[in-house]
Amino acid sequence: MLTPLEKAGILVEALPYIKKFYGKTVVIKYGGHAMINSDLKQAVMTDLVLMKFVGINPVVVHGGGPEITGMLKRLGVDSRFVGGLRVTDEVTMEVVEMVLGKINKEIASLINGLGGRGVGLSGKDANLLTAVKKLGSDRQDIGFVGEVKEVNPSLLETVINEGYIPVVSPVGVGQGGQSYNINADYAASAIATALKADKLIILTDVEGILEDRNNKESLISTVKIDDISTLTERGVLQGGMIPKVECCVNAIKGGVNSTHILDGRVPHSILLEVFTDKGIGTMVVP
Amino acid sequence: MLTPLEKAGILVEALPYIKKFYGKTVVIKYGGHAMINSDLKQAVMTDLVLMKFVGINPVVVHGGGPEITGMLKRLGVDSRFVGGLRVTDEVTMEVVEMVLGKINKEIASLINGLGGRGVGLSGKDANLLTAVKKLGSDRQDIGFVGEVKEVNPSLLETVINEGYIPVVSPVGVGQGGQSYNINADYAASAIATALKADKLIILTDVEGILEDRNNKESLISTVKIDDISTLTERGVLQGGMIPKVECCVNAIKGGVNSTHILDGRVPHSILLEVFTDKGIGTMVVP
Amino acid sequence: MLTPLEKAGILVEALPYIKKFYGKTVVIKYGGHAMINSDLKQAVMTDLVLMKFVGINPVVVHGGGPEITGMLKRLGVDSRFVGGLRVTDEVTMEVVEMVLGKINKEIASLINGLGGRGVGLSGKDANLLTAVKKLGSDRQDIGFVGEVKEVNPSLLETVINEGYIPVVSPVGVGQGGQSYNINADYAASAIATALKADKLIILTDVEGILEDRNNKESLISTVKIDDISTLTERGVLQGGMIPKVECCVNAIKGGVNSTHILDGRVPHSILLEVFTDKGIGTMVVP
Amino acid sequence: MLTPLEKAGILVEALPYIKKFYGKTVVIKYGGHAMINSDLKQAVMTDLVLMKFVGINPVVVHGGGPEITGMLKRLGVDSRFVGGLRVTDEVTMEVVEMVLGKINKEIASLINGLGGRGVGLSGKDANLLTAVKKLGSDRQDIGFVGEVKEVNPSLLETVINEGYIPVVSPVGVGQGGQSYNINADYAASAIATALKADKLIILTDVEGILEDRNNKESLISTVKIDDISTLTERGVLQGGMIPKVECCVNAIKGGVNSTHILDGRVPHSILLEVFTDKGIGTMVVP
Amino acid sequence: MLTPLEKAGILVEALPYIKKFYGKTVVIKYGGHAMINSDLKQAVMTDLVLMKFVGINPVVVHGGGPEITGMLKRLGVDSRFVGGLRVTDEVTMEVVEMVLGKINKEIASLINGLGGRGVGLSGKDANLLTAVKKLGSDRQDIGFVGEVKEVNPSLLETVINEGYIPVVSPVGVGQGGQSYNINADYAASAIATALKADKLIILTDVEGILEDRNNKESLISTVKIDDISTLTERGVLQGGMIPKVECCVNAIKGGVNSTHILDGRVPHSILLEVFTDKGIGTMVVP
Amino acid sequence: MLTPLEKAGILVEALPYIKKFYGKTVVIKYGGHAMINSDLKQAVMTDLVLMKFVGINPVVVHGGGPEITGMLKRLGVDSRFVGGLRVTDEVTMEVVEMVLGKINKEIASLINGLGGRGVGLSGKDANLLTAVKKLGSDRQDIGFVGEVKEVNPSLLETVINEGYIPVVSPVGVGQGGQSYNINADYAASAIATALKADKLIILTDVEGILEDRNNKESLISTVKIDDISTLTERGVLQGGMIPKVECCVNAIKGGVNSTHILDGRVPHSILLEVFTDKGIGTMVVP
Repeated sequence: MLTPLEKAGILVEALPYIKKFYGKTVVIKYGGHAMINSDLKQAVMTDLVLMKFVGINPVVVHGGGPEITGMLKRLGVDSRFVGGLRVTDEVTMEVVEMVLGKINKEIASLINGLGGRGVGLSGKDANLLTAVKKLGSDRQDIGFVGEVKEVNPSLLETVINEGYIPVVSPVGVGQGGQSYNINADYAASAIATALKADKLIILTDVEGILEDRNNKESLISTVKIDDISTLTERGVLQGGMIPKVECCVNAIKGGVNSTHILDGRVPHSILLEVFTDKGIGTMVVP
Repeated sequence: MLTPLEKAGILVEALPYIKKFYGKTVVIKYGGHAMINSDLKQAVMTDLVLMKFVGINPVVVHGGGPEITGMLKRLGVDSRFVGGLRVTDEVTMEVVEMVLGKINKEIASLINGLGGRGVGLSGKDANLLTAVKKLGSDRQDIGFVGEVKEVNPSLLETVINEGYIPVVSPVGVGQGGQSYNINADYAASAIATALKADKLIILTDVEGILEDRNNKESLISTVKIDDISTLTERGVLQGGMIPKVECCVNAIKGGVNSTHILDGRVPHSILLEVFTDKGIGTMVVP
Repeated sequence: MLTPLEKAGILVEALPYIKKFYGKTVVIKYGGHAMINSDLKQAVMTDLVLMKFVGINPVVVHGGGPEITGMLKRLGVDSRFVGGLRVTDEVTMEVVEMVLGKINKEIASLINGLGGRGVGLSGKDANLLTAVKKLGSDRQDIGFVGEVKEVNPSLLETVINEGYIPVVSPVGVGQGGQSYNINADYAASAIATALKADKLIILTDVEGILEDRNNKESLISTVKIDDISTLTERGVLQGGMIPKVECCVNAIKGGVNSTHILDGRVPHSILLEVFTDKGIGTMVVP
Repeated sequence: MLTPLEKAGILVEALPYIKKFYGKTVVIKYGGHAMINSDLKQAVMTDLVLMKFVGINPVVVHGGGPEITGMLKRLGVDSRFVGGLRVTDEVTMEVVEMVLGKINKEIASLINGLGGRGVGLSGKDANLLTAVKKLGSDRQDIGFVGEVKEVNPSLLETVINEGYIPVVSPVGVGQGGQSYNINADYAASAIATALKADKLIILTDVEGILEDRNNKESLISTVKIDDISTLTERGVLQGGMIPKVECCVNAIKGGVNSTHILDGRVPHSILLEVFTDKGIGTMVVP
Repeated sequence: MLTPLEKAGILVEALPYIKKFYGKTVVIKYGGHAMINSDLKQAVMTDLVLMKFVGINPVVVHGGGPEITGMLKRLGVDSRFVGGLRVTDEVTMEVVEMVLGKINKEIASLINGLGGRGVGLSGKDANLLTAVKKLGSDRQDIGFVGEVKEVNPSLLETVINEGYIPVVSPVGVGQGGQSYNINADYAASAIATALKADKLIILTDVEGILEDRNNKESLISTVKIDDISTLTERGVLQGGMIPKVECCVNAIKGGVNSTHILDGRVPHSILLEVFTDKGIGTMVVP
Repeated sequence: MLTPLEKAGILVEALPYIKKFYGKTVVIKYGGHAMINSDLKQAVMTDLVLMKFVGINPVVVHGGGPEITGMLKRLGVDSRFVGGLRVTDEVTMEVVEMVLGKINKEIASLINGLGGRGVGLSGKDANLLTAVKKLGSDRQDIGFVGEVKEVNPSLLETVINEGYIPVVSPVGVGQGGQSYNINADYAASAIATALKADKLIILTDVEGILEDRNNKESLISTVKIDDISTLTERGVLQGGMIPKVECCVNAIKGGVNSTHILDGRVPHSILLEVFTDKGIGTMVVP
C-alpha cells in the first residue's frame, strides 16, 4: 500500500509528459480485446478522459469486426474474407453500419459516464470520410469495401475545440451517397494526418513487432520507416501486422510525429505510452 | 411552363417569410411516409438544406418504427406494443439503437448530398438526452422505454452555430449508461423547448386534426392550447393524435412560438408551412 | 394560378444558386430605366434584400445622370458632354454631389422599407474612392471629372460584415479634398475588384451585346475577354457599350469571377441572373 | 514664443481631461458660424480628430439652414418659417435633403483630410432616425417637418467602434419612407440619449445663456435643470435659446452626464470645453 | 518498485479530483519551512505547475519574514514585533520591499524552470492591493503595517487567463503611493475572495489545528466556521493559529468554497490535498 | 500667461505626432538623473501615462546603478567595475536583484498614481530575458554579468494589449535559473527589437552626441548608422557613449524605426521628442 507521498511522487513523474503533449492531438485506433473485455474497455475510456482533462486531445477510431460477424450470423448471413478484407455486399454493408453505429454511441456514452464529453460520429457526418471502392488484392470485386479518398476534418476540429472527445466509426461515403466499409487502421491513419496529430496509437492484440514471433522478449521498441522494408524482407513483418505498419508509415509521411503499435491487452497501455518513459509496444518513427 | 419572371415573382413572395424566420430554430419531427417514400424523403431533405441556406436553423428528430419492426422480424424477434409503446427488452433495445443509428447517418448523408452539412447525433452523445424509465399506461413494465429527463443542448448549439444541421436519434441515456427508447415526438418537443426554438413541426401521415375524421375537408387550421380539452371531450382528438397534440402543448408551454402537425405525405410540406401564408395542417398555438 | 406545391418547386430550383453564391459579394451598377421606373426600382430593391437574406452580399453603385441634368436645368445651367463625359465645372460638381447624395439615401431608404438595412455612402466617406483628374478623349480639360485612383474597402467590409447593404454614390475625393465626378460603371468595376467580388452586374437599358443591333434575337450570351477586340474590330461593340465592356474586362482582370451586362428594363433581372440557370444579358468571362 | 518645455507643460495639463473622457462618447451639434467660416470649420474638424485620437468618440450632427435657403433662392423658391420652423413642402424637402447631404459628405471629407476617418450618414441610413410629422406651434400644417420618434443607434455604434467619426444629417424617415426635416438640435439630443453619451455640445452663435443679454460679461456658467423654469419666467431664456435648452434638458433626463451650449465663434471651443477646466459657454447639468 | 500498471492506476485515481477542480482557482499562501528548505520548495513549485497543466489555476501569495530579519540584521537594523506584527519604519519598509521582491521573482523563476510560466507581481502593480495603515493591538503606531483596503483583480485575471501562474508579494499601496507591509495570510485571503477562488490553502509549519497541541494525533480534520468561537473559548486556538483561522473564515464568508491549513513540512502537501481524498491538515468550511 | 486659445493651439500642434505614433510601441531606457531627481521622475512618468492615453505603447526598461552602489555600501561590500561593468559576485547579484526590484515596483506605482496602469516585471518573469555569462573586455571573469540571449516578448505583448505599461528590470535568467545582471541599455535595445518597436529612447545625462564635447552647441542631431564608424575614428564617440550608440545600432538593424539618445535632465524630454518636431538629443537612424 502506497503512502500518500509515494502517490504524489507518481503524479509528479507524469508532469514532463503532460507538458510535452499539452494541446496536442492523439488519434487512437481502438479495437480487438480492448474493446471486448469489459475491464479493458473501462481502462481505455478512463485513459481518454484523463488525457482530455490534462490538455491532450484524443480522437478515437474504432473497429467492430467480431460484433459484425456475430450479427451477420444471427441474420443467417455468412462472413467471407478475401485477403483479410470482409467481402461486403449490400446486406453486409447495412449490418456493418448498424453494428458500428451502435458500438460508436456506446463508446461515446462510456466516455460520458466517466465525466468526459464523447460525441459519436461516422465518416458520413459532414462528409468526414469520403471513400472510393477498393478492390481485393487480386483486383477482384469485394463489394462496398472502401479506401479513404479525402478527410474533411472541420467537424472534428469543431468538436475537439469545444471540449468534446470525438469517436469515429469508419464508414465512408462515396459517389451518390453510397456507404463504404473502411478498415479502421487506415481510417485512423488518414484522420491523424488530416488533423496534424502528434501521435497515432494503434491498439492490437499482440505485444508489438517481435523480432522472433515465438519470443515475447524479442519486442522491437523502435523502428525507423526506412528500416521497414528490411524487416519485411527478413520476414519479421507478416500477416496482419503489415497493413498496421503501413498505416504508421503513411501517418509519419503525412506529418504525424510518432506512431505506436500497442498491446491493447495490457490495461492502460495508452496511458503508459503517453505518460511514462517506459514505452511499451513498438514505435514507428521517421 | 413558367416564364423566368413568374419564377422570380415566386422567390420574391418568399421574402417576408425568410425575413420572419431569419436566425430562428425550427425542430422537425421526421417520420412516417415522408421517411419511407424516396421522393418524399428527398423533398424533406431539400427543404432542410434550403432553410439552412436562407438563415433558418433546422434540427431533425427522427423515428424509425417500421424499420425496427422489419429488422426484429429478420432476427426472429416479435414486436409487441402496449398502449402504442413498443415493449423494449434488451435484444429489442439493441436493435432499436442499431436501426435508428443507421437511419440517422443516412439522413445526415442525404443532407450532405444536397450541399448541406448534416451531423448525426443520438441522445447518448454528450448526454444530449438523459432519460428515466417510463411505465406503460397501466403502470406495467414495458422494458427500456424512456421519457426525457433533461436535454443538454450545448452540443446541438455548437453544431448549429458552426453551420451544421443536426439530426437526432431519440435514444436516451439513463442511470449507469442504460439506453432508453424514447418516442420521437416527445424527444422533438423537449429539444424544441431546450433550444428555445421558434417552431416545432411534427410530420404525420394524416392531414392534421380533422373535425370529422371521415371528411378531409374538415381540417382544423389552428387550435389554441386552451381549447384542446374541449376537442378531446368532443372526441375529435383520438388515438395517435393525442400524444402528438400533447407534445405540441408541452412545447408551447415551454416557450416555443408555434407548433404544427403537418401531413408528411404532401411533398415539401415543411417548405410550404414555413415559406407561404397558406398554412397546411393544424397549428397549435398559445 | 400556381398550386402551393408548384411554388415550392420553384423555391427548390433556386437552391443550387443559393448554395453557389453563399457568402459571396456581388457588386451591382444601378442606373438607367431601372432607377427611374417606380416598379422596376421596387423590383431591384427586392432583389437586393432577398440576396442579402439568403447569404449573398450585394453592394450597389448608382448613377444619376438624368436627375442631375434635370436639376441643372432648374438652376439654369446647361449640361455639356464631351465623348460621353459630363463637363463638370464647380457649379455642376456641386449639383452632382447634391443630386447623387439624395438618390443615394433614397435607395438606402427603399432597402430599409423592404426589411433590409441599407447604408448610403459616397466615395468621400473614409476616403472610399480616391480620384485623380481625368481628361477628355482629346485630352481637353473637362473639369472635375475623375477616375478612380484607389479604393479603400475597409468601410465597405465593415458594414457588409455587420449585415448592411452598402449603397455607393460615385463621387471621389482628390488632392486637397476636391470632389470628382466618377463614372458609375468604372466605380463599380473598381469596387468589385477591391472587394474581391464574385460578380459584377451592370444594369443597362439594352438587352446586352447584340451581334446585330437591329435584331434583339442576336444577343451574345457569353464573351471571353480575349474575344473582345475582335468584337470591337467587327463593329459589334459601339458607343456606350464600349466603356461598359471595358469595366467588365477590368474587373475580370482584377479577379472578379464573372461580369454581366443585364437589361435593367426586365423586372427582377438581377434575381434571374443570380438564381436561375437561364442567364439573361451578356456575360463577360475570363 | 513658447519654449518646448512650456509646450510640454500644456500637453501635460490636458492629461487629466484625457483620462476623464477616455472611451466616452460626445455628441456635437454643429452649425452656425462655425460651419460657415472656413477657419472655424477647420478648427472644429481638428478638435474632432484630436478627440478621436486621444480615445474620445465624437459624433457630429449638423444643420445647414443658410445653405438650404441659398439653394432654394437659386431655384426661385421662397423660404417661409413658422415659429422658427421652416415650412417644408415637397420641393423644399428635396432641397433640404440635397443640401444637407452635400454638407454632410463635405464634413466627413474634411475629417478625412485631417487624418481622421469620417463617415457621412443621414437619419435614413438603416432607419437611424425614424420620425413623425410635427405640427407648428399653433398646430398648423407646416409640411414635412418631423420630430424624432426613435433612434436606432446600432449603425452608429458599429462605425464608432470601428474607429470612424460619424457625421449625421438630421433627415428622418417616417411612414412609407417619407423624408422629414428634423431640427438638428433635437436630433443631436435624441442621438446623445440613445448612445448614452457622456456629453452633448451645442455650438451656437452666442456666448451661452446671458443673465443680461446686453452684457456679455453676464454669462451663466452652470444651470441646473430644475432652475430652468425660473430662468424662463424671469425672461432670461428667450427666442432660439429656449429650444436649445430644452434639448439639453431632454438629454440630461435621458442620462447624458452634462450638456453644453458653446459659442461656436470661438476657435477650438470644443477642445477648450473638453480639455481645460476653464469651461466656456453655459453648462446644463442635472 | 511499482509496475507501470500500478503507476497508471495512481494517475487514474487522480482523475475525479482533476475533474472536480477543472478551471477553478486555488490561492496558496506560501511561507515557512516550505519556502526555506530547498527540496520542499521544489516540491511546492512542482505542485503548482502540475495543477496549472491539468487545468487548475494556482495563485501564490508569499511571505518572507526570516529573510527580511536576516537582511535587516546585515544592515544593523533590529527587528521589533508587536503582537506578532513587525514594527515597520521607513528603513524596514524599504528592506521588506527589496527582500520580498527578490523572493517573488525567484519563485516565478523556479516555476519557469519546471516548465510553467510564472509572473512575479506585488500589490503595487496596477494597484492590485490597496492598503490602509493598521494599528497594533493596543492601537499603537507600528509604522507602515497595512491592511488590505481593496483588491483590483483584473491584472491577476489577465495573466491567469493567458496561462501564467501569478506570484504575489504582499506589499500594498496606500495614499500618496506609500508602501505598506501586509501580512501574507490576509493578503491571500483577500485575493482568494476577490478572485472568487474555489480554495484557499495556507501552508504553515504545524500539522493543522490540534485538539491537544501536545498530541499530533489529535488533528481536527474539518471545522465549520460556526464552531470556531467554541474552539477559541476552549483554548484550542491560540497564538499564530488565530489569525490564520480568521483568514479562512473571511475567505469562506467572501464566497471561497473551502479553506485549508496545511503542514508545509510535508512534501507535496498541496498536491495531496487537491488530488487525493485523504485530506491532510485542517479544512475550514462554511 | 497663455490664453485658453493659445493652449488649444498647442494641443492641436501635437495632433500630427499623435497620429504618426498611434498604436506604435516605444521602448524607453530610463536611468540617470531622470531617475534620481524627484521632479524629473514625475515628469517622465507623466510623459509615459500621456503617451499611453493617446494610443502609444510605452515600455520602460530601467537601471539603478547608484542605488545598488549605495545599498552595497550599507552592507559593507565594495563596488568594483571592469570596463564600465560591475563585477557581480553572488552577494552583489542578490543586492542588484533586491534594489532593482524595489525601484521597479516604485516606477510602476508612480505610473499608477498618475492614472496609468503600471506593471513591474523582471527578465525572470516568464523567462522574458534569458541570459548568458558575459566576460569582461579582457575576457576576465566578472561574475554574474550577463548578456541577452533571447527575449520572450509574449508576456509584454499580453500586458501591453490589455492596457498596462510594463516596467522591466534588466535581470536575466540563465542556465539552472541563475540570475544575471544585464546592462539596461542592452536590455532595452533587445526588447525594442523583439517587440518590433517604432522607437528606442535612451535617457542619459548628456545632451546627446557632441561634435566637440566641450561645446554644448555642437550637438549632432542625426547620425546614420553607416557614419558611426567615422565618428568613432574621429574620437567623437568615447567612453560611455560608445555602448549606448551600439545599442541604437543593434535596434536599428533589428528593425526599430528610429533610436534616440536624449538628455534626461531636460524635463519632459520624451514628450518633446515624440510630440514636437523640434527633436532634442541625437537620433540614430538607418
